[in-house]
Amino acid sequence: MGARKISVIGAGNGGRAFAAYLSSKGHEVVLFNRTIAKIKHMAETSRITSEGEISGTFPLKAVTDDYHAAITDACVILIVLPASAHAEVAAKIAPSLQDGQIILLNPGRTWGAIEVKNIIKKARPGLEVYVGETQTLLFTCREIGDSGVKIFKIKDDNPFCFYPEQDNRYVDYLITELFPNMSVVDDIKITSLTNIGAIIHPTAVVLNAGSISRQQKFLFYREGLTPEVVNIIEKVDQERCKIAEKLGMCPEPFLEWAKKVYGVDFSNYYDAFQNIEPYKEIGSPSSLFSRYITEDVPTGLVPFASMGRYFGIPTPFTDSVILMASSLVGTDFMETGRTNENVSLPIEVLEGGRSSAIINRAFPNQETSIIKVLSRIQDDLHDNWFVVKGRSDRVNLVKRCLFVAKGKAPTRSTMHAHVFITESGKNNLEIITVKKNDALRDGLGLKVLEKRFYGMEFEERAEAGLVVQPLISHGEYKSDVALFIKKLRTDLYELARHVRE
Amino acid sequence: MGARKISVIGAGNGGRAFAAYLSSKGHEVVLFNRTIAKIKHMAETSRITSEGEISGTFPLKAVTDDYHAAITDACVILIVLPASAHAEVAAKIAPSLQDGQIILLNPGRTWGAIEVKNIIKKARPGLEVYVGETQTLLFTCREIGDSGVKIFKIKDDNPFCFYPEQDNRYVDYLITELFPNMSVVDDIKITSLTNIGAIIHPTAVVLNAGSISRQQKFLFYREGLTPEVVNIIEKVDQERCKIAEKLGMCPEPFLEWAKKVYGVDFSNYYDAFQNIEPYKEIGSPSSLFSRYITEDVPTGLVPFASMGRYFGIPTPFTDSVILMASSLVGTDFMETGRTNENVSLPIEVLEGGRSSAIINRAFPNQETSIIKVLSRIQDDLHDNWFVVKGRSDRVNLVKRCLFVAKGKAPTRSTMHAHVFITESGKNNLEIITVKKNDALRDGLGLKVLEKRFYGMEFEERAEAGLVVQPLISHGEYKSDVALFIKKLRTDLYELARHVRE
Repeated sequence: MGARKISVIGAGNGGRAFAAYLSSKGHEVVLFNRTIAKIKHMAETSRITSEGEISGTFPLKAVTDDYHAAITDACVILIVLPASAHAEVAAKIAPSLQDGQIILLNPGRTWGAIEVKNIIKKARPGLEVYVGETQTLLFTCREIGDSGVKIFKIKDDNPFCFYPEQDNRYVDYLITELFPNMSVVDDIKITSLTNIGAIIHPTAVVLNAGSISRQQKFLFYREGLTPEVVNIIEKVDQERCKIAEKLGMCPEPFLEWAKKVYGVDFSNYYDAFQNIEPYKEIGSPSSLFSRYITEDVPTGLVPFASMGRYFGIPTPFTDSVILMASSLVGTDFMETGRTNENVSLPIEVLEGGRSSAIINRAFPNQETSIIKVLSRIQDDLHDNWFVVKGRSDRVNLVKRCLFVAKGKAPTRSTMHAHVFITESGKNNLEIITVKKNDALRDGLGLKVLEKRFYGMEFEERAEAGLVVQPLISHGEYKSDVALFIKKLRTDLYELARHVRE
Repeated sequence: MGARKISVIGAGNGGRAFAAYLSSKGHEVVLFNRTIAKIKHMAETSRITSEGEISGTFPLKAVTDDYHAAITDACVILIVLPASAHAEVAAKIAPSLQDGQIILLNPGRTWGAIEVKNIIKKARPGLEVYVGETQTLLFTCREIGDSGVKIFKIKDDNPFCFYPEQDNRYVDYLITELFPNMSVVDDIKITSLTNIGAIIHPTAVVLNAGSISRQQKFLFYREGLTPEVVNIIEKVDQERCKIAEKLGMCPEPFLEWAKKVYGVDFSNYYDAFQNIEPYKEIGSPSSLFSRYITEDVPTGLVPFASMGRYFGIPTPFTDSVILMASSLVGTDFMETGRTNENVSLPIEVLEGGRSSAIINRAFPNQETSIIKVLSRIQDDLHDNWFVVKGRSDRVNLVKRCLFVAKGKAPTRSTMHAHVFITESGKNNLEIITVKKNDALRDGLGLKVLEKRFYGMEFEERAEAGLVVQPLISHGEYKSDVALFIKKLRTDLYELARHVRE
């Protein structure tokens, strides 16, 4: 994989870890933070230091507090902020976004990707960007001063999903190339409903509100989660699972999740909280105004409660924690948080009980393969090359595939050529590259173009009922068209086969 | 006032204080406790010691763990137990209750008197007993070992009310004679809705559940009630006030109540909790299974929530505290507590927005005066004397007046005679005493009875259109009828005047 330009929005623990990780892999990282003072050393030296699982000092392409500068021309924009800030940041970056850019929320909490997608869609109706969310933060890490980060652990597995889920087909290869420990899931509900923090944190804070607000320190999990407190956490979790079930999912209670993630066979919730190794030393928040409330309530419990209302599933424990938490910090989270209405949650998400099947119907496997092939040949798919034409759904498909396969964000203004796709039968596609400006100016038909611009008739036209015409470079490649065709042919045949199947 | 036989059910802090107080005033006190071991010294010596505002050692007529023995022939039965035990105790004492006995719940919390009244009514349909509740405990006091009590303070004012409120007319003089610091209110909602403890305690416990269940000690009010916790207490209190308003009352928020009770002008709830003197040294409960939850939730918050549902007034904060508290101690308080249904709350209580007016219509002042007069002459109203006859409502009225005025509990089997009342016009009553057995056996008319048994025609028959014939003793008094008549005449004229007005 080539070097990518990647924006990391947010330079807290997680943002720094992403920056260090990606820079260590040779990518160009732009690190954004609202307050440069917090990353002063990084800004002055254009470097980030990392300890732990990744060790060293790595270059940063830029450090900025300017959204536009941060994201322009970035291939992937990683948003590593409290989920409660997603909406605001989405609105702020929307004017600067470019077609084809990939936005990944780390993590999305519940409905993060949908919320952000909808905000951008409203601000920039014609823009084509990809918005996804991870289930949790990839790293266990902590900031070090203003210079870097300590990465305790890169988690073994971190599910992610784009919304709508079909977009996974275009971008999953890129995300997993960047982050081999991430794996795609085919339903946004999987990442959004597995918001375990929201189940644990606010409940524990509310039931320890007295001691937290009088500044008594305690070990959050080991001491704060007494059996009685855990009992209520379990009730909140049961409500989440009921909603997950109603959404057509196989609900995964915290205990199952914990067993899977931590590989230990805990006998009950209390046992789990007492014995999960990374929980052992975690202290209580120093204030009620912690992410445990201000993030986890509006972006976790509120969507759960809202879904509960939609389905007529009572969520009394969830409601109670939301109410108490709202009162404790003086914010009406049911008003401001991610309700179905506030997120503009698409009805299909609530009603699509068997989303995997729906996705597969809408998007058969062959298209995944197209992207895989395109991605393999991406280095030859330079900017400014391709015209995509044909039946509009197919056009959009391949166009999107190309954006992603190229690993960059071709914008309308810079995309001077496209891939032509024409259809010659139900299952057939014709993919022809031309120099757009020439072809369009001349208004020439494809057959004419073939001869005129590339000096040859293409072969294999009738192969298995599918016409594939190779993508041909211009400029420096033009003189070596035959060689280029040969080089690409194997891949294009494979592409053709997938398109046909 | 003569010596009364009084039962004190419950020998905790409050029960002991009542026992010491009443015995110090010369009454015969029977002290009941389920566990005699807890009052072993008192049981062995038949004495109770008291320090503080009442100082000394006082006799106890009996110490028992037997309900029947405890209450038989008692004039007043004081129940000094957690309100959550009222229902069970009501069922247990019901078989042994006698007509005319007075039961006072100290305190009743919310709907205590109604709950107990209904349970007894169901168990003993024909029985006529009086059931009332106080708003709070009369004493600030603490147990001393198994021998007595320390009474820090006899509170200046403690409202009480019987249910139905008309019963106040029969018994208030007796209660205020026994306890001059108690004062009657004419609406059960006043004692029941001013359940301040239920507003404060459970909320504070829930929001400190973590620290209480991990056995951290803190000052309950000074440290446990942080501004954030108090904020939620205030919300719960607002819900109570809204219900009170809907019930036709002038709601009294905690802050107003605190200003009145403690005579200090607190600027806000937090200020009040920090500065109410008696609150200052109170520590946190040692367990979640404290009366702060097990009593205050089912007998305070639950009735408030239930009324809220009846009226369609949302009580989200109250509901949340109930739910959390229920889960914390593993009891579904909305199921077991004093809901409208569980209490069999009379619809009039909920619908009678102007209860004072209703009571006054149903029960004009004259009857209060009847009881006052009867009570003044009670020493002459011996057992086994009176036949009450006449229009049934009037009969029941005077009969009940007499029970109470006599300060004892005449049972059907021991009440050999009654007062005859006959009506001679809208506003007139005729009150005649006879020896019941003689009169009934002979089937004689009143005029005949007069001459036959008392050897005289009564005077003043036509006074102001009202016929009053004096109550006459038999036995030792018989020989001195004229003197007795003279002695009673003034009072009886006054009685007649009140009956007429």
